[in-house]
Amino acid sequence: MTLHRGHHFTQVPGPTNIPERVLNAMNRQAVDFSRPDSLAMLEGLYPDLKSVFRIEAGQVFIYAANGHGGWEAAISNVLAPGDRVLVPETGQFGRGWAEAAKALGVEVEFLEGDWHRAPDPAALAERLERDRERAIKAVMLVQIDTASSVNSDVAAFRAALDAVGHPALFMVDAIAALGAVDLRQGEWGVDVAVAASQKALMLPPGLAFVGASEKALDAARANPRERYYWDWTRRLEREHYRWFCGTPALQLIFGLREVLDMIAEEGLEAGHRRHARLAEAVRRAVAAWSEGGALAFNVPEPVERANTVTTIRAPEAVGGEAIRRYCRDHFEVSLGGGLGRLSETTFRIGHMGYLNPPMILGTLGALEASLKALNVPCGDGGLAAVTDWLAKTAPSPD
Amino acid sequence: MTLHRGHHFTQVPGPTNIPERVLNAMNRQAVDFSRPDSLAMLEGLYPDLKSVFRIEAGQVFIYAANGHGGWEAAISNVLAPGDRVLVPETGQFGRGWAEAAKALGVEVEFLEGDWHRAPDPAALAERLERDRERAIKAVMLVQIDTASSVNSDVAAFRAALDAVGHPALFMVDAIAALGAVDLRQGEWGVDVAVAASQKALMLPPGLAFVGASEKALDAARANPRERYYWDWTRRLEREHYRWFCGTPALQLIFGLREVLDMIAEEGLEAGHRRHARLAEAVRRAVAAWSEGGALAFNVPEPVERANTVTTIRAPEAVGGEAIRRYCRDHFEVSLGGGLGRLSETTFRIGHMGYLNPPMILGTLGALEASLKALNVPCGDGGLAAVTDWLAKTAPSPD
Repeated sequence: MTLHRGHHFTQVPGPTNIPERVLNAMNRQAVDFSRPDSLAMLEGLYPDLKSVFRIEAGQVFIYAANGHGGWEAAISNVLAPGDRVLVPETGQFGRGWAEAAKALGVEVEFLEGDWHRAPDPAALAERLERDRERAIKAVMLVQIDTASSVNSDVAAFRAALDAVGHPALFMVDAIAALGAVDLRQGEWGVDVAVAASQKALMLPPGLAFVGASEKALDAARANPRERYYWDWTRRLEREHYRWFCGTPALQLIFGLREVLDMIAEEGLEAGHRRHARLAEAVRRAVAAWSEGGALAFNVPEPVERANTVTTIRAPEAVGGEAIRRYCRDHFEVSLGGGLGRLSETTFRIGHMGYLNPPMILGTLGALEASLKALNVPCGDGGLAAVTDWLAKTAPSPD
Repeated sequence: MTLHRGHHFTQVPGPTNIPERVLNAMNRQAVDFSRPDSLAMLEGLYPDLKSVFRIEAGQVFIYAANGHGGWEAAISNVLAPGDRVLVPETGQFGRGWAEAAKALGVEVEFLEGDWHRAPDPAALAERLERDRERAIKAVMLVQIDTASSVNSDVAAFRAALDAVGHPALFMVDAIAALGAVDLRQGEWGVDVAVAASQKALMLPPGLAFVGASEKALDAARANPRERYYWDWTRRLEREHYRWFCGTPALQLIFGLREVLDMIAEEGLEAGHRRHARLAEAVRRAVAAWSEGGALAFNVPEPVERANTVTTIRAPEAVGGEAIRRYCRDHFEVSLGGGLGRLSETTFRIGHMGYLNPPMILGTLGALEASLKALNVPCGDGGLAAVTDWLAKTAPSPD
């Protein structure tokens, strides 16, 4: 039996670290959710969630479900069997969302990608331009694909849709993005945005959120697909028992209430800046380690790298899984494994949610020590590059 | 602002009281669920859940969802649009499950009931006998309808199916039953059984469980309905990421692990006996209060009353809601309101899950005091009848 002393660091790209005050907010007895104070609490979630999604018109829906459930909620409300969609290939999660759509009878066409580059808005515009019959019903874009750590430029995709004047619904998987990087559902004309609790929203897994524009709500009303649990029109009825299609997942929702308060305290944009700073700290270390050529970013182009997760290519002779396992078993840091076609060759550092400099320093230090123990040449400059960056971006002393 | 001192009692028929050790088991940081110890924990849930469902062949599936999600999981796996089902009318939840089926394109025929009597297996046999073309694909029976507090005789319904030799799938909503009253999915030939976390299973809401027989699994494999999140065949694949169709709701599942241990410690049958004893305590009080004619059981026939919830008819001049509100606002006990066509006339006491004599005595005492404060004639014998019963059924002193 392995003895553990000290906190284990879980730096996978979800589930992420949960604030103690969120866990404690969840540590509560059952309540009758039809009590006036419960109903007021539940009602209050919606305007605050809309602020996080940055959507004024439309509605955000809360599901007892994981992110894959969120995917299904998005698809089943606005797409009927036989509808055609375009999916820019960003990595395993773009593939996964497409797989969900196919399972639900939707015809999927990929805008091919290589899992190393961000998807190209010009390629979308070109494809939509050729769709003279307007047969394409929706574009399904993953904002941050946690397998590849590619970051999609959501606003540029909106601009591409607008440039062509194509009426397709614009659907965005913001599961590994919302709360960590900018998403302006209203301003950017995102018709459907999907999020989940266990990423930058700092909650345990078990809640999914879907933001819907007025256009998406209209599409849902006109959609002949049979549906029940995910159905928006049912959830928009006044009766509180309909809001969650049955009993709300109360303890998770007590945690959500706390998270919404925490986001308001920090400010959404301050949270984005914190993520950008800590992501850059990770990248400075990875850049230094990569100088000898043994390691490399999965995403070569700096501006296309995500602020919530970094996928790193491991030396072929060692493999990503060996590094991950060593770091977990001997240095008490759990990193993410490679996924899909990147499963052999990469590993991943998750850096979103409830995160600060010492957590990142501990993680990166444990990883550097693991690389050294496995004789992966990584040099000695990684951690110094991180402290340089953190010092440079720290508040000046009073 | 109302000041509260002392524990508020939540005795609605779900969500129910959560054991402190379950809440504490959930009070844990995120973990990487692909860790070997996490995977071993997740795998270990299935055989234990199968013991609770009393099913040997077949499989139990775990969903991040509420009970309505469990309903949809059951329906969407074994029923295609256009399929016909029979639903014995037990109350609001029989109606609700039927509504879910209709929303999913299933044709529903009710075996009519009056919400006061348990459904009649002979009526089922008679109807199935007339179905010479075997057009009825399934029977959807609610074991305990928490609106009416009617208890259905599941074994007798199985016998009715067998007597006619009808091949319909036998589907049971055991949401307000599993863990509290007998359900032998294997022995009773229940093809699909639905449960949810927040009833007798003592967890917060947010998990649904569906037990499926081999026959149900075969029906699912042959079912052409498009589905993804609920899909059993996908969840039966070896890859652990498929077991929960994405990320498992880990904190709820830590709680589930604790609950399964607690059920094993008490013994399923001992738990049933505890529920029967406490339910009888409630009934003794209600019977005594009803002697003056102001109150009455919603279910007149004693053997048809559920062991997890009791629906009580209030005097017309007072109404169920006034009693419930008074008891909640002035006596710190939340009872259940009337539902559906019983909403004006009834209120409900939930008595399932993590429950013992003083909790029941506190609840019944607060209710009796509320009745007196509202000038509802209830006599003075209610609580004495309860202590008589509890004393009579208590262990003899050493």
